[in-house]
Amino acid sequence: MGKRLVIALGGNALGNSPKEQLELVKETASTIVDLVEEGYDVVVGHGNGPQVGMVNLAFENSHNKVGGTPEMPFPECGAMTQGYIGYHLQQSIGRELKKRGINRPVATVVTQVEVSREDKAFQNPTKPIGSFYSKEEADRIVAETGYTFVEDAGRGYRRVVPSPIPVSIVELDVVEKLVSNGAIVITVGGGGIPVVKADGWYEGVAAVIDKDRASCRLALDLHADMLVILTAVDRVCVNFNKPDQQELAEMSVEQARKLIAEKQFAPGSMLPKVESCITYVEESEDGQALITSLHKAKQALRGETGTIIHR
Amino acid sequence: MGKRLVIALGGNALGNSPKEQLELVKETASTIVDLVEEGYDVVVGHGNGPQVGMVNLAFENSHNKVGGTPEMPFPECGAMTQGYIGYHLQQSIGRELKKRGINRPVATVVTQVEVSREDKAFQNPTKPIGSFYSKEEADRIVAETGYTFVEDAGRGYRRVVPSPIPVSIVELDVVEKLVSNGAIVITVGGGGIPVVKADGWYEGVAAVIDKDRASCRLALDLHADMLVILTAVDRVCVNFNKPDQQELAEMSVEQARKLIAEKQFAPGSMLPKVESCITYVEESEDGQALITSLHKAKQALRGETGTIIHR
Repeated sequence: MGKRLVIALGGNALGNSPKEQLELVKETASTIVDLVEEGYDVVVGHGNGPQVGMVNLAFENSHNKVGGTPEMPFPECGAMTQGYIGYHLQQSIGRELKKRGINRPVATVVTQVEVSREDKAFQNPTKPIGSFYSKEEADRIVAETGYTFVEDAGRGYRRVVPSPIPVSIVELDVVEKLVSNGAIVITVGGGGIPVVKADGWYEGVAAVIDKDRASCRLALDLHADMLVILTAVDRVCVNFNKPDQQELAEMSVEQARKLIAEKQFAPGSMLPKVESCITYVEESEDGQALITSLHKAKQALRGETGTIIHR
Repeated sequence: MGKRLVIALGGNALGNSPKEQLELVKETASTIVDLVEEGYDVVVGHGNGPQVGMVNLAFENSHNKVGGTPEMPFPECGAMTQGYIGYHLQQSIGRELKKRGINRPVATVVTQVEVSREDKAFQNPTKPIGSFYSKEEADRIVAETGYTFVEDAGRGYRRVVPSPIPVSIVELDVVEKLVSNGAIVITVGGGGIPVVKADGWYEGVAAVIDKDRASCRLALDLHADMLVILTAVDRVCVNFNKPDQQELAEMSVEQARKLIAEKQFAPGSMLPKVESCITYVEESEDGQALITSLHKAKQALRGETGTIIHR
């Protein structure tokens, strides 16, 4: 068994249309297979922002403006993106493995992630999804469905859903069995299909789970050796995009907390990534976390670039 | 290890909307868990006719009539339905297992199924998908895309895709590993995402693989003890819906062939089911096949109803 990595891929790295995505996943597949060649057991978590937006919008458009198709709840839209993105990733990774003569199975596991109804996020939904509506349309939908809408910077009203903390991964044992059997596993797509406890088991809930947080939960529960968050930059920076910008090769949890207090990391961008790394490092036995870019993942794992977050 | 069953579920048994489906899968889950309680290892293949029709139509409507979303190729629509149906099935089966105190993992595996470009079906596409178009619209789409359209009984023109024979299941080793580790596995959804050999590996192709044929391939490749095809009737009948209708408790492959020659079984309905059973029985070492209804599956496996197809 190699060292076990959980990689969090951005949904933006996947593309805005099926054609674009099938092209973009080639590079992703190449990086993932690089890491497999380096001897790692790789588990892939991924985002689905643009993709679930597309599926949700297609069903909204079709149902509201044309007719003939039912309303599609948000968790089901997420489940669709897991099939759609997983299919492209597994096909592309499979091709790259074959090209390099590596015989390893690749599996996409449709994955539910449990969140708590008591999570404060449910009192304060913040994640915008779907189309922009006029105030009248939004009011009508609120009356019909109980959805929450907010005004979005003069562009109209938009539905918002909560972004709760992942509590557990329902299909964890399935992922564990596949990884221990040598498979490259694609899971917690879009942060996972959000579910809450209901009727002794789970039911879907409209929410968006941050994919870095879900990958952190996954890395902890799989006892991974490292959480690797892939983003647009090779290294975390302080004074990002300012004249005195400085790349960080490593930071301790304590340093990371200090930089967060100084507001060095942008909310919705680098901040949740650094926070997920802190959680992972603190809650794991002796795990480290790494933030780097897709292109540099291999070099970063060799210690040549990237930002390591450690105790 | 228990006896291994591959079950083929009809897409029509799953429902035409997410709400309906979530309700209908409860009965399906109850039957599947009955079989688990009887000691069987269960692998579930399922159709996706109404569901892939819905996804395809939503994307067609949205792209062509509203705009703002890309065209969605047919294999990708199929991948979406695997996520969508798999999510409902695995949640529902998980709840039923929990209720009965059975601790078994449930997994949906996003599954590609290989077909051959040389398959004659590609010269003669027969499976209608998507909306009805006028002759002018259809001609324009044909010129743009090369799709094949046929006139459908005065209701307009409709795209048709081929229905080739499944050659192999790309994710077979993943399914095998999960089943041998005690998981209940949902796979080959909609007959599988159809792929053909390309560039040393696979790429998607617009086609519909019959779910009974895909489940037959799966049962053979998993060395299952039995292929179970669930349909609307408890037993296969001769002279179906006629005054002298007669239920069959069993038939040999030879008898089945004779009844096919007598046109006892309706094409697109009972015929492909009986044909898949014949293939399974002939190509497996000593497997038997069973055709029965969802409600009677447990009794049929106890030999109380259903139609057994044997050598």
